[in-house]
Amino acid sequence: MGAGKGLSASLARLFAAEGMQVALAARDTSKLTDLVGETGALPLRCDASQPDDVTALFDRVEDAFGAPDLVVYNASGRYRAAVEDIDPEKLEDALKVTAVGGFLVAQAAAVRMLARGSGTILLTGATASVKGLPGSTPFAMGKFALRGMAQCMARELAPRNIHVAHFVIDGGIASSRPQADDASHEDKWLDPDAIAKEYLHIHRQHRSAWTWEVELRPWIEKF
Amino acid sequence: MGAGKGLSASLARLFAAEGMQVALAARDTSKLTDLVGETGALPLRCDASQPDDVTALFDRVEDAFGAPDLVVYNASGRYRAAVEDIDPEKLEDALKVTAVGGFLVAQAAAVRMLARGSGTILLTGATASVKGLPGSTPFAMGKFALRGMAQCMARELAPRNIHVAHFVIDGGIASSRPQADDASHEDKWLDPDAIAKEYLHIHRQHRSAWTWEVELRPWIEKF
Amino acid sequence: MGAGKGLSASLARLFAAEGMQVALAARDTSKLTDLVGETGALPLRCDASQPDDVTALFDRVEDAFGAPDLVVYNASGRYRAAVEDIDPEKLEDALKVTAVGGFLVAQAAAVRMLARGSGTILLTGATASVKGLPGSTPFAMGKFALRGMAQCMARELAPRNIHVAHFVIDGGIASSRPQADDASHEDKWLDPDAIAKEYLHIHRQHRSAWTWEVELRPWIEKF
Amino acid sequence: MGAGKGLSASLARLFAAEGMQVALAARDTSKLTDLVGETGALPLRCDASQPDDVTALFDRVEDAFGAPDLVVYNASGRYRAAVEDIDPEKLEDALKVTAVGGFLVAQAAAVRMLARGSGTILLTGATASVKGLPGSTPFAMGKFALRGMAQCMARELAPRNIHVAHFVIDGGIASSRPQADDASHEDKWLDPDAIAKEYLHIHRQHRSAWTWEVELRPWIEKF
Repeated sequence: MGAGKGLSASLARLFAAEGMQVALAARDTSKLTDLVGETGALPLRCDASQPDDVTALFDRVEDAFGAPDLVVYNASGRYRAAVEDIDPEKLEDALKVTAVGGFLVAQAAAVRMLARGSGTILLTGATASVKGLPGSTPFAMGKFALRGMAQCMARELAPRNIHVAHFVIDGGIASSRPQADDASHEDKWLDPDAIAKEYLHIHRQHRSAWTWEVELRPWIEKF
Repeated sequence: MGAGKGLSASLARLFAAEGMQVALAARDTSKLTDLVGETGALPLRCDASQPDDVTALFDRVEDAFGAPDLVVYNASGRYRAAVEDIDPEKLEDALKVTAVGGFLVAQAAAVRMLARGSGTILLTGATASVKGLPGSTPFAMGKFALRGMAQCMARELAPRNIHVAHFVIDGGIASSRPQADDASHEDKWLDPDAIAKEYLHIHRQHRSAWTWEVELRPWIEKF
Repeated sequence: MGAGKGLSASLARLFAAEGMQVALAARDTSKLTDLVGETGALPLRCDASQPDDVTALFDRVEDAFGAPDLVVYNASGRYRAAVEDIDPEKLEDALKVTAVGGFLVAQAAAVRMLARGSGTILLTGATASVKGLPGSTPFAMGKFALRGMAQCMARELAPRNIHVAHFVIDGGIASSRPQADDASHEDKWLDPDAIAKEYLHIHRQHRSAWTWEVELRPWIEKF
Repeated sequence: MGAGKGLSASLARLFAAEGMQVALAARDTSKLTDLVGETGALPLRCDASQPDDVTALFDRVEDAFGAPDLVVYNASGRYRAAVEDIDPEKLEDALKVTAVGGFLVAQAAAVRMLARGSGTILLTGATASVKGLPGSTPFAMGKFALRGMAQCMARELAPRNIHVAHFVIDGGIASSRPQADDASHEDKWLDPDAIAKEYLHIHRQHRSAWTWEVELRPWIEKF
């Protein structure tokens, strides 16, 4: 969920290359044409903040492929503003995309995985999931909420054989940022293909040693 | 905001005893009659999740007392359920009370405090602000979001002389829980009057040594 | 323990002004002459990393004043170096001052406080207690160890009415740093008198709402 | 370093099976006979808390195999006692094994890896690395110190292409605990072979997305 460029495209390519059947969900599927051509994935329109959309999405995926093994939530509402300039409506919209949508997708996934007896739910976080910075109130509220949800679900669902894990991507992702004059510092961005391999690894962990939260950082970072 | 019994009543009594002018806001002010009689506080009806209500509240307080020195947000939506049983509408309502209401009140307070050049905003959290437990998804999502907001605002507003602090009340509060057969373990609850003194202390900290987060625990707790 | 200038001098002045009987312990008591003159405190020579010294210190204090109400450990070994340049002997010395000394003093305090049935033990940490930075290995090892000790003792001794709390002083203290060209940024240092008031406040908290860790930051900080 | 049964034996078997040249260091190499027979690893006697021993160890490994690619520190001093019963000498010994030994080995590894331009240093922690519990003071002091060191070294050495990572093994390891009447709860222990795969994975992470800390938990745990 939240398919587009960057990390989500790397995930789609890697999962398809590993032989998985992949569905790509986004609010606007027209931007997925190239990725669908490349991976053979099934594109599906869905607004993750709408319960009916999410139910319909999981019904279609189940019809096409059966109950899901692995669900990734990769959407977020990146609204940032100074405290006094925040528009409450835009803040609520950001919370809906980042946190409520994450819940709806994770719940729909969990219900289907519980019926089958196994599954993995992976949630994408950011520096703002663990550290609140100036100007970042609406984004951090959603990302903190998603992390709180991930902890509750990890503890609640692990004994029922569902692996829930949260990723703190603690830095900029290479393909989603301008790199103009940064030739000398290419190592300060995270490579989305490298991140995708970490998601696959967590999906394949043995249940005797599960990780609930993964922090990933580029080679060179400021701190 | 979120006045009623327990901690909020202790805060009202302590602030009134210290000579502050106190306004008590709640969705239902009829339950505040005794507390108003006892403290001389001004009761005001407000649904903290409604922007217009919050604006009207702060306008009335400013008319009555001037710009606020200290604002406390003490409301929360305590909806808990197993992942597969959560009603998305109730989850959104809980998020609105716990997190969106906290934002609306903190923003309205910040705008007025910035105009005057000083002020304190205190936000009440819980164990669920820092630890996600099974069955606690909707409550933890709101409390994590409120904490993320507190961190952003603390960093953003501290250099402008506004002190934002978040309290992690890591245990049950005495007056809000049944104590029937607990005579031998009275120390496992937090006393709301003791908590209230900590809020007042943080409000009065010198700006050279501000605390952004306070954890409070009872004498005896399980862990 | 660890008396000298800066925070420890502010603590001595405040505690004396509050009517407490104060003993000042340091490896070199010659530097305490002015402070002793000002506060009437009892100066005692002690190397906190030597068990016999610590036992003798507490025996002398108990002879002079009775069992201690409040013990503060404020010594640390501030050795910093790049990983490849660290001298293992100096690293062990730093650990002895920061962590082993903290343990010896806290244990001696706890034994005497348990006999009497109450007491407070306060431990001074730093940014390096919670965040490891480049070049800071020996200092961070000692400060992390002291924090781990504080958590164990807080949980173990709280039900026996001993309050153990750890302070994360997350910034530079005014009197211990050069301030030459910083007139315009005086708020970026912590004032040691303001910190001292926080120590006194924690000592006086009601046991129904104890704090185990306090973070203090200056008004303006980088982060 | 710290070879014996349990996790360290699983690591030796996995690394040997992957075609690595493995050296096993322990204070008492007589207990390594079976493991050496099984893996073809080189057994070396070393007391990790003695600088000369550690230097000699790395010299011998370098003579045999060249500069190390991967060094794992898996030794710890598991001394536990109530605060008033802790023997200061035993506490210092525990710190030496858990933390000082970890430093000596990591420093020796870093120096050799810096000369070559790459390498991985993995450090084994426990629940006590992040949470101080009653009775656990000496063990937690060492494990907190090792974690502080890991953070400093990770930040300092990452830009120089050395990957330092710390593992929080948050539960009991199957082979190191009695399992008598636990047939129905086998999932509450971590399988050391599953943990070993996580160490190998972290060693092989692409430097564009490095993890500095990994938490591993069994499928079923109390919390």
